[in-house]
Amino acid sequence: MSIENSTHIKYITAEMTMAVRFSETDAMGVVWHGNYLKFFEDAREFFGTVYQLEYLDFYRNGYFTPIVRSEIEHKAPIHYGEKVKIIIKFHFNNAAKLIFTYEVFNATTGQLAAEGKTVQVFLEKENRTLELIKPSFFMEWENKQSWRV
Amino acid sequence: MSIENSTHIKYITAEMTMAVRFSETDAMGVVWHGNYLKFFEDAREFFGTVYQLEYLDFYRNGYFTPIVRSEIEHKAPIHYGEKVKIIIKFHFNNAAKLIFTYEVFNATTGQLAAEGKTVQVFLEKENRTLELIKPSFFMEWENKQSWRV
Amino acid sequence: MSIENSTHIKYITAEMTMAVRFSETDAMGVVWHGNYLKFFEDAREFFGTVYQLEYLDFYRNGYFTPIVRSEIEHKAPIHYGEKVKIIIKFHFNNAAKLIFTYEVFNATTGQLAAEGKTVQVFLEKENRTLELIKPSFFMEWENKQSWRV
Amino acid sequence: MSIENSTHIKYITAEMTMAVRFSETDAMGVVWHGNYLKFFEDAREFFGTVYQLEYLDFYRNGYFTPIVRSEIEHKAPIHYGEKVKIIIKFHFNNAAKLIFTYEVFNATTGQLAAEGKTVQVFLEKENRTLELIKPSFFMEWENKQSWRV
Repeated sequence: MSIENSTHIKYITAEMTMAVRFSETDAMGVVWHGNYLKFFEDAREFFGTVYQLEYLDFYRNGYFTPIVRSEIEHKAPIHYGEKVKIIIKFHFNNAAKLIFTYEVFNATTGQLAAEGKTVQVFLEKENRTLELIKPSFFMEWENKQSWRV
Repeated sequence: MSIENSTHIKYITAEMTMAVRFSETDAMGVVWHGNYLKFFEDAREFFGTVYQLEYLDFYRNGYFTPIVRSEIEHKAPIHYGEKVKIIIKFHFNNAAKLIFTYEVFNATTGQLAAEGKTVQVFLEKENRTLELIKPSFFMEWENKQSWRV
Repeated sequence: MSIENSTHIKYITAEMTMAVRFSETDAMGVVWHGNYLKFFEDAREFFGTVYQLEYLDFYRNGYFTPIVRSEIEHKAPIHYGEKVKIIIKFHFNNAAKLIFTYEVFNATTGQLAAEGKTVQVFLEKENRTLELIKPSFFMEWENKQSWRV
Repeated sequence: MSIENSTHIKYITAEMTMAVRFSETDAMGVVWHGNYLKFFEDAREFFGTVYQLEYLDFYRNGYFTPIVRSEIEHKAPIHYGEKVKIIIKFHFNNAAKLIFTYEVFNATTGQLAAEGKTVQVFLEKENRTLELIKPSFFMEWENKQSWRV
């Protein structure tokens, strides 16, 4: 599948579970498809806490890291009252990009509900220009990780 | 009703209609209650266009106008596929506040779906302190309106 | 204050903390005012887990419990990266209504960020008619609580 | 680009413009990336009105048409106060799928802000099983269109 093919060799991963908000459902009785991008954001947040690389660390070092690409493939629905489990993987790559993939499970039924991928770039906070080289604070962080293959 | 009692003598008004977004519905098949605050925001936006007093006018004059109070009373549901009509009223008052009330109709059934009220204050953009006196650009705008009673 | 005046003598309470989602902020750099209604929903959800009275319990007993009134008073902003603490109180009352009040704290600064109130009614799931008498499963639940005054 | 490569020969198209909601911005001062999926939904809605193929037509014929795949590529930001122009294309294909692509322009700056693609399937409303053959009402609609190449 395209999402899997585009991933990279080394990665680190985290797993979180959470509840569905009623406001996230739609008139089909399931989580509205666009809300999976909120789930991905929650998963990145959680990943950042686990691996000590939070949004505000980027910010304090002078960078925004906006999303430049998102993909979601939906496999099964999630209903209100069901739990969500997300496995998030950060994939090492040589460019100044943050590449995450996501597996979202309906933890109540055990089904894979969706797979996804996001790509972020480094934007200098002040003038909002694209940073093409990985910032040093980020490379130091990468060097400290125990990558899996 | 409390929303009506708290309104003021002079007002100006505008009326808009719009469609419900599918993403705004919930698993009960109706517009999720919190989304009425988005409808109110749409109505203020529309009002600002009609009466030449837009958010960015406040901003350029050095102010944010954050909401400090919101109220919604729900009377009837709105379903996906139904149209929404909003009557928004701006109520004159002596304090440095923006007071709007809203009547949200299910334009498909003709029913009053909700009534609401919001109060905004003037916050100086730079240091985010509360402005207690109406800014002059705003008083000039008030003086130009044809108020109804 | 109106929110406090409208509360009732006996209550039970719960307290939760959570993070702000980036998607919940707005261009003023703070949590968008309407998202407090999502926080209130999260708090009710949490309350339901603590006190064994979840949305799906109402549903299984044949009821929806839609919001018919919401109020929010904003006191201080919450920024991305700051934590939120919510104290939710369920107030006993004689009518077939669910009355909750909320205190939302910016847990990072310690400031009271907002106060709020919601009122829910019992709606029969099938024909969506208003239930004027408290359902027996709900009265049994009320009788089991240790109310505070 | 992948979004373009995956499109198909025959298409019909529509163009809409709209304003950005303040609630759709984030703390970077731009439209939050996930809200582009709401823009896509708005564009499908608009397309449906123009081409007489609305969500409720599917519904009345016994189908939901959930999104099974979404992609967004972000090129430039959109700020509050700027206008959005969306060019939506419906791409003919042989499978029982609805394939749309989107070009979202910052109509104020003229810049291409994002490109996107969504894929929807036909789900039987009652038992929520996948329909593998195009429903006849839908084929009749396809036959009436003036396709472009």
